[in-house]
Amino acid sequence: MYGDAVARLVGELKALPGVGQRTAERLAFHLVQAPPERARALARALQDVSESVRPCRVCFNVTDQDPCRLCSDPGRDAGLLCVVERPQDVLALERVGGFRGRYHVLLGAVSLLDGVAAEDLTIAPLVARVKQGGVREVLLATNPTFDGDATALHLQAALAPLGVRLTRLARGLPIGGSLELASKAILTEALERRQAFPAAQE
Amino acid sequence: MYGDAVARLVGELKALPGVGQRTAERLAFHLVQAPPERARALARALQDVSESVRPCRVCFNVTDQDPCRLCSDPGRDAGLLCVVERPQDVLALERVGGFRGRYHVLLGAVSLLDGVAAEDLTIAPLVARVKQGGVREVLLATNPTFDGDATALHLQAALAPLGVRLTRLARGLPIGGSLELASKAILTEALERRQAFPAAQE
Repeated sequence: MYGDAVARLVGELKALPGVGQRTAERLAFHLVQAPPERARALARALQDVSESVRPCRVCFNVTDQDPCRLCSDPGRDAGLLCVVERPQDVLALERVGGFRGRYHVLLGAVSLLDGVAAEDLTIAPLVARVKQGGVREVLLATNPTFDGDATALHLQAALAPLGVRLTRLARGLPIGGSLELASKAILTEALERRQAFPAAQE
Repeated sequence: MYGDAVARLVGELKALPGVGQRTAERLAFHLVQAPPERARALARALQDVSESVRPCRVCFNVTDQDPCRLCSDPGRDAGLLCVVERPQDVLALERVGGFRGRYHVLLGAVSLLDGVAAEDLTIAPLVARVKQGGVREVLLATNPTFDGDATALHLQAALAPLGVRLTRLARGLPIGGSLELASKAILTEALERRQAFPAAQE
């Protein structure tokens, strides 16, 4: 009705996660009515990304230089590896700041539901990195979900034989939350993992 | 942190309506991790739209041919013009089907808040269309909002001297709604515009 070009744009936008027919149409009509430079700038940014962005050959994070900025930074502790599911997780942790080790991106989590097996993740290259030596600690920073925990168990099985120290992100009540609104699973874990107060020195 | 290309894509996506930093990052990471053909196909669709899509010179609807398909369709009644605010509104009405007249897109609504005056809309070309003759009825299909109603009043002032019949979309309780959930404004209008039952023949 509004022409093939707009229909194709709506189709491409609809293929994005979380974008339905209505949102795709709203975005397409916005771009169609905006100055054409806007659509062109977005097209160029997409083209650039499709040409220049690759997974880092060391950590599998998203990067336009290989190895990536984080793997090439001599100021970061190569002895401490933080293993996350997705590039977004690296971003979340870097936004917080404070972590000065390096990363390893699994590119997913094992999932029965989505049919993702441990072999589909970058576990073999992680084991190879640890085997190369120089890694003291691997922080398993998978999501606190069923799939994330299952993935952590796979990682433990793969890494424990190498004698490296394994840790994971602390679990319990989220700061700023309330007992009243915490789910049963959160409260159960907070009870089971209750900590000495005042905190004991490790 | 993840490279200039991704950062620029996030920036361009964030400029879209309803897309914040988080959503822009989620979309960008999705595109970065998808096969590069996906980003390229979206880039191409955007490029095509920026090159081929223009406002129709007759009705100002979005189109890739000029005059647009609706204005060029001899099967549509040129004597009945439906005036809407935006191209999306044409889409909404065409989706319903049943309307066999033609359209005129104002490209906005008068708005004190957004600083849009009647002169910013395509009212002058609409008046010129009606003056050319052949139009019996103009259906004012602006949104049932403060700005839409103000726009309808402007249209009335501009078109009434031409002796054309002016109508507007019916107002009242939305079908499928409930009295309990209808706002005070909806109920007030439904009361004030109460209709004979059974409906009188016009």
